Amino acid sequence: MSGNRAVAYKEPGVVEIINTDYPTFELKDGPGVNPANIGRKVPHGVVLRTVTTNICGSDQHMVRGRTTAPQNLVLGHEITGEVIEVGPDVEFIKVGDIVSVPFNISCGRCRNCKERKTGICLNVNPDRPGSAYGYVDMGGWVGGQAEYVLVPYADWNLLKFPDRDQALEKIMDLTMLSDIFPTGFHGAVTAGVGVGSTVYVAGAGPVGLAAAVGAQLLGAAVVIVADMNEDRLAQARSFGCETVNVSKGDPKDQIEQILGVPEVDCGVDAVGFEARGHGKDASHEAPATVLNSLMDITAAGGALGIPGLYVTGDPGGIDEAAQHGSLSLSLGTGWAKSLSFTTGQCPVMKYNRQLMMAILHDKVQIAKAVNAKAISLEDAPRGYAEFDAGAATKFVLNPNGYVKA
Amino acid sequence: MSGNRAVAYKEPGVVEIINTDYPTFELKDGPGVNPANIGRKVPHGVVLRTVTTNICGSDQHMVRGRTTAPQNLVLGHEITGEVIEVGPDVEFIKVGDIVSVPFNISCGRCRNCKERKTGICLNVNPDRPGSAYGYVDMGGWVGGQAEYVLVPYADWNLLKFPDRDQALEKIMDLTMLSDIFPTGFHGAVTAGVGVGSTVYVAGAGPVGLAAAVGAQLLGAAVVIVADMNEDRLAQARSFGCETVNVSKGDPKDQIEQILGVPEVDCGVDAVGFEARGHGKDASHEAPATVLNSLMDITAAGGALGIPGLYVTGDPGGIDEAAQHGSLSLSLGTGWAKSLSFTTGQCPVMKYNRQLMMAILHDKVQIAKAVNAKAISLEDAPRGYAEFDAGAATKFVLNPNGYVKA
Amino acid sequence: MSGNRAVAYKEPGVVEIINTDYPTFELKDGPGVNPANIGRKVPHGVVLRTVTTNICGSDQHMVRGRTTAPQNLVLGHEITGEVIEVGPDVEFIKVGDIVSVPFNISCGRCRNCKERKTGICLNVNPDRPGSAYGYVDMGGWVGGQAEYVLVPYADWNLLKFPDRDQALEKIMDLTMLSDIFPTGFHGAVTAGVGVGSTVYVAGAGPVGLAAAVGAQLLGAAVVIVADMNEDRLAQARSFGCETVNVSKGDPKDQIEQILGVPEVDCGVDAVGFEARGHGKDASHEAPATVLNSLMDITAAGGALGIPGLYVTGDPGGIDEAAQHGSLSLSLGTGWAKSLSFTTGQCPVMKYNRQLMMAILHDKVQIAKAVNAKAISLEDAPRGYAEFDAGAATKFVLNPNGYVKA
Amino acid sequence: MSGNRAVAYKEPGVVEIINTDYPTFELKDGPGVNPANIGRKVPHGVVLRTVTTNICGSDQHMVRGRTTAPQNLVLGHEITGEVIEVGPDVEFIKVGDIVSVPFNISCGRCRNCKERKTGICLNVNPDRPGSAYGYVDMGGWVGGQAEYVLVPYADWNLLKFPDRDQALEKIMDLTMLSDIFPTGFHGAVTAGVGVGSTVYVAGAGPVGLAAAVGAQLLGAAVVIVADMNEDRLAQARSFGCETVNVSKGDPKDQIEQILGVPEVDCGVDAVGFEARGHGKDASHEAPATVLNSLMDITAAGGALGIPGLYVTGDPGGIDEAAQHGSLSLSLGTGWAKSLSFTTGQCPVMKYNRQLMMAILHDKVQIAKAVNAKAISLEDAPRGYAEFDAGAATKFVLNPNGYVKA
Repeated sequence: MSGNRAVAYKEPGVVEIINTDYPTFELKDGPGVNPANIGRKVPHGVVLRTVTTNICGSDQHMVRGRTTAPQNLVLGHEITGEVIEVGPDVEFIKVGDIVSVPFNISCGRCRNCKERKTGICLNVNPDRPGSAYGYVDMGGWVGGQAEYVLVPYADWNLLKFPDRDQALEKIMDLTMLSDIFPTGFHGAVTAGVGVGSTVYVAGAGPVGLAAAVGAQLLGAAVVIVADMNEDRLAQARSFGCETVNVSKGDPKDQIEQILGVPEVDCGVDAVGFEARGHGKDASHEAPATVLNSLMDITAAGGALGIPGLYVTGDPGGIDEAAQHGSLSLSLGTGWAKSLSFTTGQCPVMKYNRQLMMAILHDKVQIAKAVNAKAISLEDAPRGYAEFDAGAATKFVLNPNGYVKA
Repeated sequence: MSGNRAVAYKEPGVVEIINTDYPTFELKDGPGVNPANIGRKVPHGVVLRTVTTNICGSDQHMVRGRTTAPQNLVLGHEITGEVIEVGPDVEFIKVGDIVSVPFNISCGRCRNCKERKTGICLNVNPDRPGSAYGYVDMGGWVGGQAEYVLVPYADWNLLKFPDRDQALEKIMDLTMLSDIFPTGFHGAVTAGVGVGSTVYVAGAGPVGLAAAVGAQLLGAAVVIVADMNEDRLAQARSFGCETVNVSKGDPKDQIEQILGVPEVDCGVDAVGFEARGHGKDASHEAPATVLNSLMDITAAGGALGIPGLYVTGDPGGIDEAAQHGSLSLSLGTGWAKSLSFTTGQCPVMKYNRQLMMAILHDKVQIAKAVNAKAISLEDAPRGYAEFDAGAATKFVLNPNGYVKA
Repeated sequence: MSGNRAVAYKEPGVVEIINTDYPTFELKDGPGVNPANIGRKVPHGVVLRTVTTNICGSDQHMVRGRTTAPQNLVLGHEITGEVIEVGPDVEFIKVGDIVSVPFNISCGRCRNCKERKTGICLNVNPDRPGSAYGYVDMGGWVGGQAEYVLVPYADWNLLKFPDRDQALEKIMDLTMLSDIFPTGFHGAVTAGVGVGSTVYVAGAGPVGLAAAVGAQLLGAAVVIVADMNEDRLAQARSFGCETVNVSKGDPKDQIEQILGVPEVDCGVDAVGFEARGHGKDASHEAPATVLNSLMDITAAGGALGIPGLYVTGDPGGIDEAAQHGSLSLSLGTGWAKSLSFTTGQCPVMKYNRQLMMAILHDKVQIAKAVNAKAISLEDAPRGYAEFDAGAATKFVLNPNGYVKA
Repeated sequence: MSGNRAVAYKEPGVVEIINTDYPTFELKDGPGVNPANIGRKVPHGVVLRTVTTNICGSDQHMVRGRTTAPQNLVLGHEITGEVIEVGPDVEFIKVGDIVSVPFNISCGRCRNCKERKTGICLNVNPDRPGSAYGYVDMGGWVGGQAEYVLVPYADWNLLKFPDRDQALEKIMDLTMLSDIFPTGFHGAVTAGVGVGSTVYVAGAGPVGLAAAVGAQLLGAAVVIVADMNEDRLAQARSFGCETVNVSKGDPKDQIEQILGVPEVDCGVDAVGFEARGHGKDASHEAPATVLNSLMDITAAGGALGIPGLYVTGDPGGIDEAAQHGSLSLSLGTGWAKSLSFTTGQCPVMKYNRQLMMAILHDKVQIAKAVNAKAISLEDAPRGYAEFDAGAATKFVLNPNGYVKA
């Protein structure tokens, strides 16, 4: 067990499979590791043999060169694994457990964790609240698109699946619990979706589709998914959503055709800062488009859930404001309609157990909804490329062969 | 009773006392009345003899010429009165009742009212959800800075004070229930203020001071009020707040001196779109200053309550974006900290009864906190001028002599 | 239109069709009308031609002689109708509208209504908060199992269906919005049901089945319905519920067989005070059985929703305590598990719009779930008898032929 | 450090100071230790030198012989201490920290802890969810009325005071954070107390007084405290409460004299199962009295917070039902009024940080409100006796002299 094959970021547009170290119960120096975290002991951690690890849209921001991610950063924050070693302080998680890893790393011991705000844990990232595996400026915890990965604070972080065989059988659904399913669901929850709601989800990538599934699970009456990629829209229609192609004009008109009124109760932004314009502006990046559109579309008294990522600095931003993370928002419109807005990372632990229950009892088919497809670790570069090109597919890496064809 | 003296907007910077019509149970044509509302029958209304009616900061936006308010618009949406006539459909409100009028006009019969969202009633303003007395683009309901005023949907809208004598005795406190006390309180509630919170309130005008009082009533541990007007800051200190003078530099440093940490749990924007810069930029209007500052100051996981008004169009805006109600917001900062935001008019009916109870049982001294001062109706122009000049005073008009010296 | 055929209570075990008065906009004297309500003007009311009106389990309490209901009381509080006359104060509801009537009568003008607590309106029943059509001690509002019925405060109370044809097409589902669907849903909501919950519903009558449907709509992972009537349990299984026959022993063991653990997250009491014992005691009435069983079955930290009716006096109670509405409850068990309990009438207006949306958009099939069956008004006595005998059927009266075969 | 002086239960009515073992990082066999907990390793624990440790009303149930507490059980679950040793798995708590110990022991790693339900932790008590120090049937964790005590899962459980000197200065207030202040506050919160509420607290012992203080902190308009002990009622009046002496008749009449109406918005049961009757029945134990009275007194739509303890078995109960923890409750009354009920241990960690903030910023004087009095460890038997006799005093043991006269 001396080696560990992993997916690493090399330069804009390029990821490669590299050989890296097998994890120990210590956070060692390496690409992107925060100096204050170097040498940090992790007796509360476990080593996982990766069962599945998914490619995420937020990984693409790094791979596209829109961040300051360093060369050789091992990627991957969507991890499901089998516990193969436990640290001395781990009491309840056992070797052999099949577990889901929330992408937010959290300590379970700070004020925020005690308040269930695990997306902004105070103890894992020396720079700011909040952390994640394999992500730039998130403390330096090594990514999980690898054969093996270290998970700290294992008793707190890990969601154990009740039955190993059942877990492996439903693994393509359960793998979505580490990030996109809770993230999309959080978008729907914070948009105020409930039984009977009408919902508009901007973005038909995996998080948008997961938000749509989440809205359905919450009892929404109508879920409308918007994108400009017809394959992704077809994917949304495959599980009962209505769709809007924003490259074909103002979504408001299309919503009116669907609902009879030009507005919805709830809006979800599953796009984030790399948004493009609508209609004739669809070919240009226009980072405030989605938020301004949602304020226009969402009925007075509604809410916007914003799981889509907005950043504090974007070297590739379209102008100086965008490069500093500033957006020109029609806040007056939102204010006149008494809208509310919720931003930020999804605190995965708030939702993953309940969503697991829905999967295990066949109340939801998330893998099918996002068109999950398992590929080998070696195929990760191809997965990244196809996903970046707009494939209506969620790529699930299968580094150790747990996923059977 | 054929006449009705009232305060009217004449032109930028000028208000005058005019003679206008005594109200009937119909909304007649007049300055600013929406065509679709002309001739609307109001059998569910009552006529009030005004007990008190306050000058509000949001009136100042009109008086400064920052809106399209028409000449001779009768102003005034902060109204307390004695019922002197009741329409035929009024069942529970009686002649002689002393009542508080929520500034939001609402019907009590639409979906939003049924959901307690009375700030965005669907049936009172033909142009958009939400309405108010004496305000531009709000449907044309005649303002209450007058001797008499018509209140529609009286059984629904009015808060009756339980005892007439007690009400008149505490009238300088109770008069704040029509707008600023609930509005400030709503700011605090939506900022997530609870027992033990640390709170930053931007703006020490009446709404900001009311938000501070509201935060105290909710059990806040520390309330910090910020402004650049030293008289208003002194007013905040008079009831136990800490203060920050934003003209003296970054509020973050001043907060750190007060709390030992440079951030608060909860942020309230009681300034709105006419904000000025901080520190050396304090002499210039800079409409996004407060919101960007609050995102900087509020701790990860916190919330921003935004009772301060943001508009969809501002003829006096500093640039084209501002004129269209667009602001350059550092949303990336907010997103990284998982902040949430609540905008819009306060739905007064959600709070006014409970705040009345707190006043009647001496749990709060809102009049003293905002330095309420009764003046005659004829003195309204002076009140407007002094308030606009920054007086640390809340002016309460006393058109019928109910308020004794 | 001078007459009005209606279902009336005659004596224990007997209901009959009688001729009664066509409604006017006044509450006249009659069986069960509270003296303080006699002569009450109802200008805010509408007259409905009944589209559907359902027989409810709570009607059975009266018909079985378990209350002090007077002879000739016109029954019926589950009403859907077409507006055929509107009172002079009605502004938004129009002749021709097809509307659902919440069984709770409420004024829309008192403190409780303003707080959405329409089940305990302060202005409609002179004896106590809360009222209903055609029910003993509820103020005397005439029941709706009739050709025509008066609905007061129509703008407030009525839920208008958006499209007449669509409404009539889905009428067997929409008719459940007046009571049992919101009531069952309220049971599920107050039991804390959410996505992924495990739920136990005591009682497979229409309210229990509606609670089960409601729990599914809220995303429950597993819904277990308990009864001792095999036909009703079969009905529960028909839409995906698990079932427990409480006459066959302790539900705890049966739950363990289903879930692997002997407890659920959420418990709903859809039985109420006429409960019988479990296992070998199933043949005897034992009014505390369901609540004590739910405290035993519900996991620590769970909640109990109690839509099942408990009364303050029951002439047919098994002992003196029961006759006074007292139950011997193992509260120590509940306390040790930190359980919470929510009782009372469902405030229908809190839920009916959103459930209507779910019906109109085909997210739920409530009529099928409760096995709704339309019968003529004249057949009501047979419907009462069959329902009392345990038929797994929800009887929907069709007095005016709106429901087509 | 080989010894440890501690307060132990000897027999009904008798507590004594004994010599016991200094704690190690293991739960050893001893009086009341659950067999499954014997030998449990506690590397995640710390040893505290006790700063203060209070005598609680729930200790009295054991001392009066109303439980099966074994001889020599070391008592004490209200603990504040200085950390003097840390286990190897403790990462953030340091030697020298002054900390408050929530009386509920919780692991921070189970489903319930992750959901903030620390009063029903699944991993600390082998018999059932929930645990406490020094309490019968709670797993066997050794009590803290001693010089030293072991606290498991220290990073999770402990609330660190930010400044040592400030903590010691306010220690008589801060010592209430381990139990009664959060417990009373939880009673108020779960009774629905908010700004402007009218509140009735049954019981003027320390928890009742803490509930009253909590209600005030939440903004209640009027807080009425009821008891039959005039000294305790005087204590309640000392900080602004109204009072009712239940030995003098029906509380309803007395409430009407105070409020003008015979009911309150919110009811708190701070008495529990050893309740006595009201009025002429005040000399007899009548365990359902308080709950039935609260259902009578609380207005429709209200809520009951029930921090007062109800047990599953009571050897000293007045009849067989009481001995099994069954109460004869007028649930029909509660149901007719749509009341809700919340029972169980307060999850201290949900509240202690915010209440600490209120204390540190002088927003509340809990020590004064409950008449806290420091006594030496050796004086504990006298403290128990006086408290049992009805002294209006909260006894704070001072085993190591931290509290200065």
